[in-house]
Amino acid sequence: MTSANLPPVCILGLGLIGGSIMRDLSARELDVFGYNRSRSATRAAQREGFDVSTDLADTLRRAAEASALIVIAVPMEAVGQVLAAIAEHAPHCGITDVVSVKKPVYDLVRSHGLQSRYVGGHPMSGTENSGWGASLEGLFHRAAWAVTYDYAAELDGAGTPVPESWSTLFVQVCTLASVTGAEAVPVSVSRHDEAVARVSHLPHVIAESLAIVGDHGGTLAQSLAAGSFKGATRVADTDPSLVRNMCETNAEALVPVLDEFIALLVDARATLSANTPSLKQLAESGNRAYVRMGARSGARHESVSPVKISSRPVMRVHPGAPGWVRQLEQIEALGGRVEVF
Amino acid sequence: MTSANLPPVCILGLGLIGGSIMRDLSARELDVFGYNRSRSATRAAQREGFDVSTDLADTLRRAAEASALIVIAVPMEAVGQVLAAIAEHAPHCGITDVVSVKKPVYDLVRSHGLQSRYVGGHPMSGTENSGWGASLEGLFHRAAWAVTYDYAAELDGAGTPVPESWSTLFVQVCTLASVTGAEAVPVSVSRHDEAVARVSHLPHVIAESLAIVGDHGGTLAQSLAAGSFKGATRVADTDPSLVRNMCETNAEALVPVLDEFIALLVDARATLSANTPSLKQLAESGNRAYVRMGARSGARHESVSPVKISSRPVMRVHPGAPGWVRQLEQIEALGGRVEVF
Repeated sequence: MTSANLPPVCILGLGLIGGSIMRDLSARELDVFGYNRSRSATRAAQREGFDVSTDLADTLRRAAEASALIVIAVPMEAVGQVLAAIAEHAPHCGITDVVSVKKPVYDLVRSHGLQSRYVGGHPMSGTENSGWGASLEGLFHRAAWAVTYDYAAELDGAGTPVPESWSTLFVQVCTLASVTGAEAVPVSVSRHDEAVARVSHLPHVIAESLAIVGDHGGTLAQSLAAGSFKGATRVADTDPSLVRNMCETNAEALVPVLDEFIALLVDARATLSANTPSLKQLAESGNRAYVRMGARSGARHESVSPVKISSRPVMRVHPGAPGWVRQLEQIEALGGRVEVF
Repeated sequence: MTSANLPPVCILGLGLIGGSIMRDLSARELDVFGYNRSRSATRAAQREGFDVSTDLADTLRRAAEASALIVIAVPMEAVGQVLAAIAEHAPHCGITDVVSVKKPVYDLVRSHGLQSRYVGGHPMSGTENSGWGASLEGLFHRAAWAVTYDYAAELDGAGTPVPESWSTLFVQVCTLASVTGAEAVPVSVSRHDEAVARVSHLPHVIAESLAIVGDHGGTLAQSLAAGSFKGATRVADTDPSLVRNMCETNAEALVPVLDEFIALLVDARATLSANTPSLKQLAESGNRAYVRMGARSGARHESVSPVKISSRPVMRVHPGAPGWVRQLEQIEALGGRVEVF
């Protein structure tokens, strides 16, 4: 998977994620340009020598001329508007995105009739900071980069061949992930949203709630707070509008996961308030779950090699080859990464 | 506050905390010896040149001869037994401890009639690992080290002078904290237990529960888990028996704090499952709480000096001077640190 598979890349939205992708591509001397709504952030990027503009229509016409891969990196609330502009100015470009929920984006993509030109994406990396000023090179190194393939799965399930243009786009998106140092993990839209509700959106809800409970303890609690508190609240530093965007647009998947979590706490509350307080069940099953998740990381911790080995099983896939969509489904079940060739 | 105030130190229990204290004192060439139940850990410590034994009675007789400061660093469940041995073999030594709950320890101390020889302690530092093998020099650097003073507050409240022997012991415990690089934070037993329920025990309950919810998501969720999940679950790696010990012995303070946390989640669940899902209130108040807690850290983040400035307000106190117990109460209200002179 080399950058030879990558056309010029047009990034719409240069916040933490979009900006970091631009830095990574630019550092590899790949052809990248972009659009940002904020004039001050755009000027800051221009001063660093990046090829960016505040004119969306103009940027999209340029993308159309260059047959660029368009990366939608705006907040969820702006995706509909950006897709409308793409449908108008660059309807034949391949499109991907980096939004942290996939079903709401896919619904909008379909409503604009762009699904044959779309492969969803979600790099699982970030910091508690946001905006161009927070972007940095190398942010995605070794991170998972979810890549959706529902369009191909739907066609394949109906016995319809997947168009070559879509397979090519899938390769491009996997290549984009790869050149930033990330690992492409194929996943369906719905399984993605359920998984990130568990491992990303729930932790955000927890961080906000725990920050409030800690703050209720006043200066003494703040003074005594150590690693466990800091680790669990760090992401409460995130701009609340971004947290709302993630959680609200993924509420359908998040609510049942939140219910699972609340049920565990309610059980713990019951055993802790018994005459003989006990946390036996939660502490033991929690630790087993933690160890099991770590064990799946396999070589990552055990390797003595200075070269870190990815913990994710890899499957090499040739998009368009017979059975390739079935292969993606197998990798998804393993949480594995795909290498296209 | 120099190590001149410190008599020989006798550490009972050489796990992560007791072992790390031994390493710190030893590195400063202070007189330190100790006891550990485990023969293999004791041998490991001996091989590193530490003065440790598996004979508790013998170690305590030595402590009595040397008028040592005894540090109880065994798990909560073993504290009663250790106090009984101290009452038998070293009843005149000063005693402190490093157990993560203070009321259950203080109750046991009183039941052995040792309260005039006891100043409770709790260094707010640790890792997810345990045992001598996990101990390390410098673990407490810049950490808060809670130091209790209920005995003095009770006497002072009743208009009874605090015995000089107790004031001297208080100085010794603050000095112990100081020589490990920690900051002594005076706190009453009950306010300590309430604060650590918020900032330590609740995060442990959260980590266990979140690990289970993440694990339910299978390999895909594990593959997609990034910083927010890892930060919030890290302490689920802790030995479950230690987590049980902390949470079960502090259940009285932990249950109401858990109720506060559950109530926030139940509210969030309600607004997220509305027709128009919203996390506005939680995201905004959580972020405000986080920022407020950070703002209290004052100079810590803003200082441009290469010498880090402590975020905790400092008050210099001369134990035994008129009004000194009242000073401790003022520092406690600020979550500040005490410097004895």
